Amino acid sequence: MQHTVLKSCRQCLARIHTSATSFGNVELTSKRYPHLRRGRFSQLTSDDVTHFRQLLGPDRVLTEDLDGYNTDWMRSVRGASQLVLRPRSTAEVSAVLRHCSERRLAVCPQGGNTGLVGGSTPVFDEIVLSTSLMNKIIALDTNSGALTCEAGCVLEATDAYLADHGFMMPLDLGAKGSCQIGGNVSTNAGGLRLVRYGGLHGSVLGLEAVMADGQVLDCMSTMKKDNTGYDLKHLLIGSEGTLGVVTKVAISCPRRPNCVNLVLLAVKSFEDVLATYRFAQTQLGEILSSIEFMDAASQECVSNNLQGGCRVTHPLPGHPFYMVIETAGSRDTHDEEKLSLFLEEGMQRELVIDGVLATDTSQIKSLWQLRERIAEALLVDGYNYKYDISLPLHAFYDIVTEMRQTLGDSIVTCCGYGHIGDGNLHLNMTSREFDGDVLARIEPSLYRWTAERGGSISAEHGLGLKKRDYIGYSKSPGAVVLMRQLKRMMDPHGILNPHKVLPEES
Amino acid sequence: MQHTVLKSCRQCLARIHTSATSFGNVELTSKRYPHLRRGRFSQLTSDDVTHFRQLLGPDRVLTEDLDGYNTDWMRSVRGASQLVLRPRSTAEVSAVLRHCSERRLAVCPQGGNTGLVGGSTPVFDEIVLSTSLMNKIIALDTNSGALTCEAGCVLEATDAYLADHGFMMPLDLGAKGSCQIGGNVSTNAGGLRLVRYGGLHGSVLGLEAVMADGQVLDCMSTMKKDNTGYDLKHLLIGSEGTLGVVTKVAISCPRRPNCVNLVLLAVKSFEDVLATYRFAQTQLGEILSSIEFMDAASQECVSNNLQGGCRVTHPLPGHPFYMVIETAGSRDTHDEEKLSLFLEEGMQRELVIDGVLATDTSQIKSLWQLRERIAEALLVDGYNYKYDISLPLHAFYDIVTEMRQTLGDSIVTCCGYGHIGDGNLHLNMTSREFDGDVLARIEPSLYRWTAERGGSISAEHGLGLKKRDYIGYSKSPGAVVLMRQLKRMMDPHGILNPHKVLPEES
Repeated sequence: MQHTVLKSCRQCLARIHTSATSFGNVELTSKRYPHLRRGRFSQLTSDDVTHFRQLLGPDRVLTEDLDGYNTDWMRSVRGASQLVLRPRSTAEVSAVLRHCSERRLAVCPQGGNTGLVGGSTPVFDEIVLSTSLMNKIIALDTNSGALTCEAGCVLEATDAYLADHGFMMPLDLGAKGSCQIGGNVSTNAGGLRLVRYGGLHGSVLGLEAVMADGQVLDCMSTMKKDNTGYDLKHLLIGSEGTLGVVTKVAISCPRRPNCVNLVLLAVKSFEDVLATYRFAQTQLGEILSSIEFMDAASQECVSNNLQGGCRVTHPLPGHPFYMVIETAGSRDTHDEEKLSLFLEEGMQRELVIDGVLATDTSQIKSLWQLRERIAEALLVDGYNYKYDISLPLHAFYDIVTEMRQTLGDSIVTCCGYGHIGDGNLHLNMTSREFDGDVLARIEPSLYRWTAERGGSISAEHGLGLKKRDYIGYSKSPGAVVLMRQLKRMMDPHGILNPHKVLPEES
Repeated sequence: MQHTVLKSCRQCLARIHTSATSFGNVELTSKRYPHLRRGRFSQLTSDDVTHFRQLLGPDRVLTEDLDGYNTDWMRSVRGASQLVLRPRSTAEVSAVLRHCSERRLAVCPQGGNTGLVGGSTPVFDEIVLSTSLMNKIIALDTNSGALTCEAGCVLEATDAYLADHGFMMPLDLGAKGSCQIGGNVSTNAGGLRLVRYGGLHGSVLGLEAVMADGQVLDCMSTMKKDNTGYDLKHLLIGSEGTLGVVTKVAISCPRRPNCVNLVLLAVKSFEDVLATYRFAQTQLGEILSSIEFMDAASQECVSNNLQGGCRVTHPLPGHPFYMVIETAGSRDTHDEEKLSLFLEEGMQRELVIDGVLATDTSQIKSLWQLRERIAEALLVDGYNYKYDISLPLHAFYDIVTEMRQTLGDSIVTCCGYGHIGDGNLHLNMTSREFDGDVLARIEPSLYRWTAERGGSISAEHGLGLKKRDYIGYSKSPGAVVLMRQLKRMMDPHGILNPHKVLPEES
């Protein structure tokens, strides 16, 4: 059985974007964040544009209709870049960066532009360096499952290629239809199956990146083990394009499972969510491939906000909490027996109030929508205050309750959902339009709350522009000092994705 | 069922070491590698010793009987350190390194001293900084399995602690009875279960390290996801104590499986080993926890070299290749059915000539000896030329055959075994005594052969002293330049584990 998950509905998104916040009325980032300074970068000249046209040819040097490159998916930030470059090879990326370095031109590397923290769009007039045309699969070792590909390969298309050979990508995100593997690696994307296949620091085998000065850093390898010197690829994984531009990736791909099952569970309290999680770990163990939770508010939002052809009918409405548990294994009879016993005993123990089991692809797709389309449904409300935090499980849901009490009627929705198997909560609040007062009541108190419990203020979304100033809540002063030293060493003129990850030095 | 594996027999090792190469006649490293230069470090003075005695108390400052600290487990290298320090806390490590940094005294951090590349022993007179007394378990989160402990915790003892709480360490090595988690992290140890639980870059959640100047770098976290800035812990993982001294570790521990089974298979050709490996992946999939292979020469060595009380009787003698496949799962009936079907069909397909199945702890321990005690058995031959390489599976065994032909009668044994599930070959040659001519016929041609096939010249053992000069076979010149920059940035006076990992600058 194929094992695919619905991507966000493009029609629905288009409608949301057109009605609520078309490009034109997205506020410029430099206006929303007036304390930002452009920095001492050079101004782009017509000579630069001519140089790039000679380098890439005129078709891959864009100077018009750049809104899609300047604005993020959520329509929450908007840069003012005048130039988009679309190289097709590592050599071209290298030549572009060499010129930018010599001329002190700032650069914003961009993959699928699906980030949620303003990391993939320019802040001022940085040149956008798009990896979209670097989308070739280079090789697949069918003995080991090592895939080598260019940075611009789209996650879903790459997974489809692997499916034909009995393998799968080890990561899966809602944005799979647009996000690119180079961006996934640069942001250390997590997603729905990290609980089974681990994170990218574990599964990336090798990479190639172009440094700020145009030099190519070759850390390619398809070996699962390689202890020869410092493992430099980890510097690039999760550094959000500020230390180098990832151009190629080798990644370890697991075999595609023979059978996949999914259950949606209704649960009466968050305590029972935790008990069900622990019970699933012992009963389902090695076949668990995803374990997600959603609260009532998130599910009401999906039921109420998505309309027309995009409507989702909830099979178990009216419960306080839900869990989605996916299993993936090699033998269907075994998996089904494990799952039946888990459900039976879960109900006997009164952990599970009600449940829906899906065993075929279309049922599975349909149930996944309840989890995967929350982000889209929230956008219909208007402006989204989006948080992605790690917390110890004993404190996991408390912050949602607390935020709901603090914000009261000043917001439309306050909901929590996410990857409970990874201790990763997606906490979202919405208002009709951006409201600075609401933001001030959320930040930084939410970050302080998280830090006090040993959590992370950004579990998988990264820091980008929006969260960089809060790095101190999750990282020690000494660690931030070392990060600055690394940045200065690898990008001495600071041209790579400026204004992101690290706060301005005071 | 408990899931433990025999450690090397200490009696047997003691006998080997006494008979073959007692401490006294191990050649000094500085004599065997005459091109090494001590460097411009200060000489230790009595004032330094007095300072350290005031800092740590007299009992934890050793100046006599240092052979065990100066010599490696294989008796292949011997340093001339005059001082061993045994701090009990991060603050003490910090104070020691602050003094060493100010005084320009070189330091060799040492955990269990079980390394195989001369990385954990001093080369000249470096001060040995032992983490053995920093062996406290700090916390275990029984929801998430996150364990926090000090660097000196011994792997086997830590695993035993976790067993009481239903968890297990994600890594398992032959050296488990002595090796320490701080050393495991510093060397990015691999081992027998990487195929299931991944490497340490994936499972280490956080760490604390003391930098060369004595500053404490706090990268502690027990969160599975934390994308807030550059992930500095990866710089320490696998850098072999040359960038900092790891003092605390947080690691993600999987739940202990309910049932473990093991099969020993006899296979007629290496081609069939590969076919059996692929077949196991599809048939056993998610319950595979280890997949190892051994050739006839390695098994003859175990059968012939270990004598007396340590004798191992081989249950399937006389076959050209063997595989050990371990499964670990949540439900015994399912695992046993999968394994039976795998064996039945494997025999029908004539992949497997013969097999032994072990389902209880003592049988499992006994079968594991055939794999785990090869290293020990090889030592009985005399001097070991030890190689640990990653290779694409299609070329995996060719190098053993080639080496056997090249070396002919000049050696006693030439054998190959290792972690086939990770593409990791342990290639070993032995002679009665160290023979420079044999070494010259192995190196660097073996490294060249490996590099030509895209492999790694050190899969899991690291570079240490013995392999540092060959880094160029696995890493690009640009990568080595960046490594040097990192070293200079984090340890400007080069006092941390000098002569290791990076070759001297020419």
